[in-house]
Amino acid sequence: MVAERIKNLCQIQYLNYFYTLKGMGNLAKDEKKLVEEITSMSEDFAQWYTDIVKKAKLVDYSGVRGCMVIQPYGYAIWENIQKGLDLRFKATGHENVYMPMFIPESLLQREKDHVEGFAPEVAWVTHGGNEKLAERLCVRPTSETLFCDHYSNIIHSYRDLPKLYNQWCSVVRWEKTTRPFLRSAEFLWQEGHTAHATAEEAEAETLRMLDVYADFFENELAIPVIKGRKTDKEKFAGAKATYTIESLMHDGKALQSGTSHNFGDGFAKAFGIQYSDENNGLSYVHQTSWGVSTRSIGAIIMVHGDDAGLKLPPRIAPIQAVIIPVAQHKEGVLERANQLCDQLSKAFRVKLDDSDKSPGWKFSEYEMKGVPLRIEIGPKDIEKNQAVLVRRTTREKFFVSLDNIEEEVKNHLDSIQQEMYDAALKNREEKTSVATNYEEFTNIVSEKGGFVKAMWCGELECEEKIKADTSATSRCMPFDQTPVADTCVCCGKPAKKLVYWGKAY
Amino acid sequence: MVAERIKNLCQIQYLNYFYTLKGMGNLAKDEKKLVEEITSMSEDFAQWYTDIVKKAKLVDYSGVRGCMVIQPYGYAIWENIQKGLDLRFKATGHENVYMPMFIPESLLQREKDHVEGFAPEVAWVTHGGNEKLAERLCVRPTSETLFCDHYSNIIHSYRDLPKLYNQWCSVVRWEKTTRPFLRSAEFLWQEGHTAHATAEEAEAETLRMLDVYADFFENELAIPVIKGRKTDKEKFAGAKATYTIESLMHDGKALQSGTSHNFGDGFAKAFGIQYSDENNGLSYVHQTSWGVSTRSIGAIIMVHGDDAGLKLPPRIAPIQAVIIPVAQHKEGVLERANQLCDQLSKAFRVKLDDSDKSPGWKFSEYEMKGVPLRIEIGPKDIEKNQAVLVRRTTREKFFVSLDNIEEEVKNHLDSIQQEMYDAALKNREEKTSVATNYEEFTNIVSEKGGFVKAMWCGELECEEKIKADTSATSRCMPFDQTPVADTCVCCGKPAKKLVYWGKAY
Repeated sequence: MVAERIKNLCQIQYLNYFYTLKGMGNLAKDEKKLVEEITSMSEDFAQWYTDIVKKAKLVDYSGVRGCMVIQPYGYAIWENIQKGLDLRFKATGHENVYMPMFIPESLLQREKDHVEGFAPEVAWVTHGGNEKLAERLCVRPTSETLFCDHYSNIIHSYRDLPKLYNQWCSVVRWEKTTRPFLRSAEFLWQEGHTAHATAEEAEAETLRMLDVYADFFENELAIPVIKGRKTDKEKFAGAKATYTIESLMHDGKALQSGTSHNFGDGFAKAFGIQYSDENNGLSYVHQTSWGVSTRSIGAIIMVHGDDAGLKLPPRIAPIQAVIIPVAQHKEGVLERANQLCDQLSKAFRVKLDDSDKSPGWKFSEYEMKGVPLRIEIGPKDIEKNQAVLVRRTTREKFFVSLDNIEEEVKNHLDSIQQEMYDAALKNREEKTSVATNYEEFTNIVSEKGGFVKAMWCGELECEEKIKADTSATSRCMPFDQTPVADTCVCCGKPAKKLVYWGKAY
Repeated sequence: MVAERIKNLCQIQYLNYFYTLKGMGNLAKDEKKLVEEITSMSEDFAQWYTDIVKKAKLVDYSGVRGCMVIQPYGYAIWENIQKGLDLRFKATGHENVYMPMFIPESLLQREKDHVEGFAPEVAWVTHGGNEKLAERLCVRPTSETLFCDHYSNIIHSYRDLPKLYNQWCSVVRWEKTTRPFLRSAEFLWQEGHTAHATAEEAEAETLRMLDVYADFFENELAIPVIKGRKTDKEKFAGAKATYTIESLMHDGKALQSGTSHNFGDGFAKAFGIQYSDENNGLSYVHQTSWGVSTRSIGAIIMVHGDDAGLKLPPRIAPIQAVIIPVAQHKEGVLERANQLCDQLSKAFRVKLDDSDKSPGWKFSEYEMKGVPLRIEIGPKDIEKNQAVLVRRTTREKFFVSLDNIEEEVKNHLDSIQQEMYDAALKNREEKTSVATNYEEFTNIVSEKGGFVKAMWCGELECEEKIKADTSATSRCMPFDQTPVADTCVCCGKPAKKLVYWGKAY
């Protein structure tokens, strides 16, 4: 494996030399960069992340503080995420809408907890053209207030319920420190907002959408998640209860990957969203909201990537298989490769790279881009009626007959998907520990990292002490509450809840 | 036809009475509104438009000045527009990206004409959280400057060209008077931005995308368009040439429906976007941009609608056929209707309305919503193994066997699509006049409206006089320049161009 990498590097360096001779200064510089500047994960995880994001051309930095340019390859991943989620939303009866991107200041202030949570981090529009606005508008950090305002207009009778709306949009939160996908001033997401006749229906919806998220992360992104409820300290501003799916990155840090909130009738009371029930009495609706954002791309990078670059789960990969012709100048090679591309394109997202770069350059380029399957085809392969499949995960080679290549590709993609999920699960399990006393707890957090399962008394004080001492936060109270001890890992008083703790992005 | 409408109205009024008795005040009020408040097109076209938009639940007004809430039915039309366009963009080699929604003031000012065109109508962000920003940011009114900034980072060599990017997003223009879809402070659109090695390639791209738009409008939206070039007065701020597709609304006003701009190397020079060519010389790129927005929904409404409401072309309709069970309480009716719905859903976008409202109410509801085909099925139909198809366009009834209903539905949808295009074309032809002297010209504009084909000397003065005298503007210089006279319709000097003139939205 290492030998292969070195061979590839040699080929690329030779190529640079060649191109430089031909006067292609810029290209050569780019190619050199690609090879020289890949930081290894173990050396500097943050730099590794930044390198991948830049080199795989997911994101370019923009001239606007904390805002990113999502490049075609990054955006294609987002489009696949959108497709997978949107399908699930529609299958569960949700409809898409679009709300204004601005929220008048008075509207944002309508729900007390909500405005306290968001006002410090919003961008304010004060002028339209040359005129000062009578009232400031904030660029939406999230759209609860807008949905509530609309719902108060359109919900009158129990026959108008439930309202199951979702929107795809960008939101802005004026964060101090930003990182592509993980924390940016502007990001893309979907936000579901629903209104129901009863508290029970709202709770069922909140949990149903959490399940939709968990299913999507596990089956499409190959990322195992812990489902649970947030503590009061960590819940959404204005929510009665926040549920979350938490995933674990390769460096042992947690990532909150999707949240689903039950608002009870708090927002309905603040915004006057009432309906007449079947007995003609007036009741407040019960509401939920739930969201997944471009953060999920950060999760894909940090759960699956390795020192060679991205590793994309087949179901979400913009290119599922790349065909690389070998000795493509020889007669018949490109023709056969093109045929193969046409054939496979009917069932898979396939790219044929017939550029004049060397196969070695292409091998490491598409490895870095995380393409799950590489298909090599050269004159000898054609003679033998075969192609060579190479899995991005294990770099194993398989010589397969061209007669049943469709089935082979399908099987490999399916098993790579499973393999990636299994590897991520194994990694999470290895990095999940149990702590029953505080010394053990602080040691694990500072030395091993990962998730720490430990009991909690339910008091804010202990939660805050743990955060102050270790930087770890309560990630969630998992649905599986099998206790690991009787007493709070922090104060020693009787425990009320099992909590997953960890440092988080 | 009139008799049928009256019958439907009677049924609804009976229904109101019935519901009022049962105490369902809100519902009854809504239903009453639906019937009472449809303004006829000939009486007040603007009010007719507003009624349709509200009653078909395309848009709700929001608390934010000039911003609209796009409701599920309106957004579903937009999703179908997105699908149709996105497919065409990808088939012509374009890739989607996402740029920041903010533009720093200094970046907006980089290209002189551009900033002059847009600065008076942008929304300015001045504060992030509690802090005043060092530099104001405008919310993008269009993203040329952002794409240019990015292109200057990523384009170095001729091998990096062309760049064929597109983005789907919302933009903000602080318009004084606003109308849903037609002119709003915030609207949704796509904006393509491309960079090319040569002027010829940029011009070819500009025209290619205009053709893509024309094809989409004619074949998907059933809206015939005039393709042409804008005069210098009407071109985009910063463009060398702007091409347009212009369509004609039912009231005889024109709507600019999509534009495609050739920037030459003007932006490239302002932003320093240079590449090294094959001979290692440095050249500026040539750029284009092109956009279609939610205005296109306004066009669909105003080209196809009638006094009964919306009329949606089958290819873009969220619901292509609605199944309405008749006497649905009778045994077997709902079961058979459900079967039919399942069967047809495999090939079409179908809805079964089995709510407890009367068939008459449902008939006018889905007429108003513009559903192209209604399928009625009752006990007698089931007995005869048939269903009744009713076309939204002509209200003709067809009794078809359930054995080949899929084929029948397909054929009807196809022919409705064609019928709608033909009707729109006929209307446009009837409302297109030729004027060879100024009296004739002003009379046509003030009395008949529509497009007026007339010759122009090419001078700004005449263009401005025509606008001042008649409110008509030059819509475009059509590609077909067959002259209709020798002299300018305004000043009588020798003519240079044939122009389509008209009042416009």
